[in-house]
Amino acid sequence: MKPRVSIIMGSVSDLPILQKAAIVLNDFEIPFEMQALSAHRTPAEVEDFAKNAQSRGIEVIIAAAGMAAHLPGVIASMTTLPVIGLPVDSSLDGMDALLAIVQMPPGIPVATVGINAAMNAALLSVQILAVKDETLQKKWSDYKVALKEKIVKANQDLAAVKYPFKTN
Amino acid sequence: MKPRVSIIMGSVSDLPILQKAAIVLNDFEIPFEMQALSAHRTPAEVEDFAKNAQSRGIEVIIAAAGMAAHLPGVIASMTTLPVIGLPVDSSLDGMDALLAIVQMPPGIPVATVGINAAMNAALLSVQILAVKDETLQKKWSDYKVALKEKIVKANQDLAAVKYPFKTN
Amino acid sequence: MKPRVSIIMGSVSDLPILQKAAIVLNDFEIPFEMQALSAHRTPAEVEDFAKNAQSRGIEVIIAAAGMAAHLPGVIASMTTLPVIGLPVDSSLDGMDALLAIVQMPPGIPVATVGINAAMNAALLSVQILAVKDETLQKKWSDYKVALKEKIVKANQDLAAVKYPFKTN
Amino acid sequence: MKPRVSIIMGSVSDLPILQKAAIVLNDFEIPFEMQALSAHRTPAEVEDFAKNAQSRGIEVIIAAAGMAAHLPGVIASMTTLPVIGLPVDSSLDGMDALLAIVQMPPGIPVATVGINAAMNAALLSVQILAVKDETLQKKWSDYKVALKEKIVKANQDLAAVKYPFKTN
Amino acid sequence: MKPRVSIIMGSVSDLPILQKAAIVLNDFEIPFEMQALSAHRTPAEVEDFAKNAQSRGIEVIIAAAGMAAHLPGVIASMTTLPVIGLPVDSSLDGMDALLAIVQMPPGIPVATVGINAAMNAALLSVQILAVKDETLQKKWSDYKVALKEKIVKANQDLAAVKYPFKTN
Amino acid sequence: MKPRVSIIMGSVSDLPILQKAAIVLNDFEIPFEMQALSAHRTPAEVEDFAKNAQSRGIEVIIAAAGMAAHLPGVIASMTTLPVIGLPVDSSLDGMDALLAIVQMPPGIPVATVGINAAMNAALLSVQILAVKDETLQKKWSDYKVALKEKIVKANQDLAAVKYPFKTN
Amino acid sequence: MKPRVSIIMGSVSDLPILQKAAIVLNDFEIPFEMQALSAHRTPAEVEDFAKNAQSRGIEVIIAAAGMAAHLPGVIASMTTLPVIGLPVDSSLDGMDALLAIVQMPPGIPVATVGINAAMNAALLSVQILAVKDETLQKKWSDYKVALKEKIVKANQDLAAVKYPFKTN
Amino acid sequence: MKPRVSIIMGSVSDLPILQKAAIVLNDFEIPFEMQALSAHRTPAEVEDFAKNAQSRGIEVIIAAAGMAAHLPGVIASMTTLPVIGLPVDSSLDGMDALLAIVQMPPGIPVATVGINAAMNAALLSVQILAVKDETLQKKWSDYKVALKEKIVKANQDLAAVKYPFKTN
Repeated sequence: MKPRVSIIMGSVSDLPILQKAAIVLNDFEIPFEMQALSAHRTPAEVEDFAKNAQSRGIEVIIAAAGMAAHLPGVIASMTTLPVIGLPVDSSLDGMDALLAIVQMPPGIPVATVGINAAMNAALLSVQILAVKDETLQKKWSDYKVALKEKIVKANQDLAAVKYPFKTN
Repeated sequence: MKPRVSIIMGSVSDLPILQKAAIVLNDFEIPFEMQALSAHRTPAEVEDFAKNAQSRGIEVIIAAAGMAAHLPGVIASMTTLPVIGLPVDSSLDGMDALLAIVQMPPGIPVATVGINAAMNAALLSVQILAVKDETLQKKWSDYKVALKEKIVKANQDLAAVKYPFKTN
Repeated sequence: MKPRVSIIMGSVSDLPILQKAAIVLNDFEIPFEMQALSAHRTPAEVEDFAKNAQSRGIEVIIAAAGMAAHLPGVIASMTTLPVIGLPVDSSLDGMDALLAIVQMPPGIPVATVGINAAMNAALLSVQILAVKDETLQKKWSDYKVALKEKIVKANQDLAAVKYPFKTN
Repeated sequence: MKPRVSIIMGSVSDLPILQKAAIVLNDFEIPFEMQALSAHRTPAEVEDFAKNAQSRGIEVIIAAAGMAAHLPGVIASMTTLPVIGLPVDSSLDGMDALLAIVQMPPGIPVATVGINAAMNAALLSVQILAVKDETLQKKWSDYKVALKEKIVKANQDLAAVKYPFKTN
Repeated sequence: MKPRVSIIMGSVSDLPILQKAAIVLNDFEIPFEMQALSAHRTPAEVEDFAKNAQSRGIEVIIAAAGMAAHLPGVIASMTTLPVIGLPVDSSLDGMDALLAIVQMPPGIPVATVGINAAMNAALLSVQILAVKDETLQKKWSDYKVALKEKIVKANQDLAAVKYPFKTN
Repeated sequence: MKPRVSIIMGSVSDLPILQKAAIVLNDFEIPFEMQALSAHRTPAEVEDFAKNAQSRGIEVIIAAAGMAAHLPGVIASMTTLPVIGLPVDSSLDGMDALLAIVQMPPGIPVATVGINAAMNAALLSVQILAVKDETLQKKWSDYKVALKEKIVKANQDLAAVKYPFKTN
Repeated sequence: MKPRVSIIMGSVSDLPILQKAAIVLNDFEIPFEMQALSAHRTPAEVEDFAKNAQSRGIEVIIAAAGMAAHLPGVIASMTTLPVIGLPVDSSLDGMDALLAIVQMPPGIPVATVGINAAMNAALLSVQILAVKDETLQKKWSDYKVALKEKIVKANQDLAAVKYPFKTN
Repeated sequence: MKPRVSIIMGSVSDLPILQKAAIVLNDFEIPFEMQALSAHRTPAEVEDFAKNAQSRGIEVIIAAAGMAAHLPGVIASMTTLPVIGLPVDSSLDGMDALLAIVQMPPGIPVATVGINAAMNAALLSVQILAVKDETLQKKWSDYKVALKEKIVKANQDLAAVKYPFKTN
């Protein structure tokens, strides 16, 4: 099966964070690929990747990077596919990566998610793929219900904790 | 023609910023609607909007808000559609709005663009709609070429400015 | 006894911080309840809670959340009760949560306390309940005296530490 | 009529911001007083005010200050009444005032509202007074409905703006 | 011997940081005292201290506090003695304490040193006492020479580390 | 009359801010001098100034600078006199200047006042000179009384403003 | 004469800031060129520029950009020439641009100067060219002397301003 | 062999960070020296170093410092050599050091690299030395190729990790 989502990380050291994205895409049975490509150390490979992603069948790109995180923006400048930018906290609590990803100039948007928010990056790719795909929309609805049930369950456990004066 | 993109703003005072988004969607001939809805002052209307957007044919939502900008996240929590969050600078240079939009908890992503970046919000909605739409992909490619040509033209004008010692 | 204060947390992982609030309310013998409700993952439950809190006898709500902390503001938008917002440090030293709670738009205030300041959130609820309750005012005065005595005692211990040249 | 709310400002130059609070309290027909008292330049007057406010019939205090804004915390340390802290932007976009007000040590809470958010400071005082006052609760509910209607009306005006391709 | 410098800390938990100040004052043989006094929990004691410090022979006050650090400013408002403010990192890397101490309103200065910089707070008190005291000026000069010699010595050790290609 | 306080500014463009310091020193009849010296552009002149200030009779130095504000620290490293650092807002709201002045390494303190707080810089120099000077202490006490009276007067004017429902 | 320094700006709107760099290079009689190239809108032109700069005789590149300023880093990744990064204040006081330029990953340095500091960017290029060029070193020394004399002259003017009690 | 690059650190405690710079210079076979010199504790030694560096054959200076990091700017003010400033994270995540180094006033640039980015400081010195040195340019090109190959290799390892649904 050909990958529909491509996860690109600026450094292999970002892999532990990105595995949460892989798990989500697996859960949704969306084929994906993962690669490490550096905007600065492998610019030719990045260009090659960005320019051919669409013709290879990729529909959405997730690009993760830390520090002066140029990778998502650089990829976005070379493809027409939507690019999801994932700031990784390598320094300054991730604020440098967040600003270097989200504050793109007019004309080249990057769909930015929170610092280290790999799960949300993957879910956003699911939402984008679901725009024209009712099966995926259904799975996404079910997923949100499951999230809710986890909270509701946690709440019941919480209610079982008895404080003095706690009412029922 | 039914709107495919819905632009929601937290306050009518955000309209001057959002008109840049309207212009882009017009350029791409994508039908859209614009509404002012406040996460805090009209929560029922927001819920009503979010829950019915998909069945009304909306495919992508752009939600703009300033300060403690809850609108994009609140809408995202009540729809399966992708939500693009646009932080508006009403205070603190827009940093409060940016953080209140992008730092969503796991499970409910918001595709955040830069502070006041209405043009990029609209272009991101175009990219998302283009995932399965080759005509739109073509338009988007052409749009990027036009952006490039504007820079190339500006560069030629710049080259015409003659400084002493300036080479040719 | 029916709860008068409701402590809502965005995630069960905030429980260790919120237990300090529970201890304070116990000390003041104010009946309370604790629940985990997510503005984004359980919006219907939040709405249900917020709209019925007052008729259930709740007089003050404490809402704790981290990151893009929408929970206090969302609850405040759906109730006429005073809502105390407690920013939890889940990222960025809690600055994202602080700004997402305190910078509410005109019309919907949230009474914000410091980052992770669960004890102060509880004490603020005591102060609000004490406005019309002389017994509680008396307890609150006594509590402040006890706090002072703890410092005075610590100071005496400190004075006992003898540095060379330390006077007495 | 004796004032129930006391509005204290650190400097008379904060008056233009605080007038929004005065207007709200007038709208709710809550008697109030306004004074300029400086935590640093008139400490004796601040102490005098704080210690006698409750016996003078004050039920809630709103304290506004900029820069190293000590006034709300200093007043809170000398009264059992709830103190609403209003950070005023005199420098650093108001971040210094916000942090100097909200980050109170355990034991002395200040109910902080947003930077320059005088309207919300007044509404929070209304909410606190309304805890045991059904008439005021009713007014507050009506006030929120009026806020909502203003947005709904603005939205209708917005819908009347016709963009090319805009649907109806 | 009567103390000439008074070290006041907002909380006994600041003692480990302040011991560096005590060591410096010991080195300079300047008699001092240490106390824990809270601007918010023991306002009467703070006032008592501040108003009587000068008549007790104190010449300089060092006041250390964290979070919304009001202690130095509150003391400064009640004495004519110079007050050295020492921000303690209890939250937000100490930025809240720094701003709450240094950004004093016109009329009441606090001589602020760096975050957790207890040694510098003590040295600043030495410099102030030395203004009219030639013996202390001499000690202070010698102290700076000793600091320099420590660096010069460290540098010699560094020079002894041999890297390939390292010159001599 | 020989100057006792030396006001040094990093750039003549800081003069409008520093005139407030000059006015205060005039009010206290303390002889002073003002000079523009740049830590970076006139390092030899700075060294010359710093090394000879004390022998010329200077007792306190006020050093003002913006951006990467090295001037106060550089002077402090070359004199035993107390140096008051005044951060000037030339960029980044003055945060760069504040941090570059206050965060001095152990051994070389700078007594930092608030951003653009020239009046406080001058008053701090008065406080330091007053440590051994009862006449100056008396003037300083009187000055604080005058500040207080200005606020008290402003408060009376404020009380005269009549709001509807305003009590008397 | 062939240009030795290439000034690249991310947008023609940065030209007013960069003219200060052009003036400096003119003063030093160093031939230069100026171009507008966008890392995101003209990636192919940027690559073309970066890869051929050295063979065209360019020795140093100055790259200016605002917001998520990728231009300096992207150029640095494609050339062996030193790249001077100049953050332009287009948003957030230029902090986003500063971090996006200076926080480069290991392997690809960018020599960053201050926000909007075009004069320093040009002077840094002069210093780099002067490393092996004694004539340029001499000019640079003279330039620093001229800067110093400007300050010394300004200081003389300042000394002429007579304050009461001002000494001579 | 005489050193061509001089690495100066504000404190010996910065040595572990600076060893990465030493390793790079060794790899490039560029002779260098390392010294600890404090702008504040050894100003005479700093001046001596800065004024004689060029005549001793030094071509580029790397200056590392933390907190109110004056060392790079102070050295830059006393030499015509290019100075590379390396902010060290000793407090506030290194933001104080970054701003105190990069925000130099017009006339005295410091070529700033990222926080703790000792490897990039060394590589920047290589780039500067390579401007007129083809052998070094060749080494630098080879170094970048090696960096790239490391990433490409890591990517191959990554591709070998098999996720369910992972394509090949």
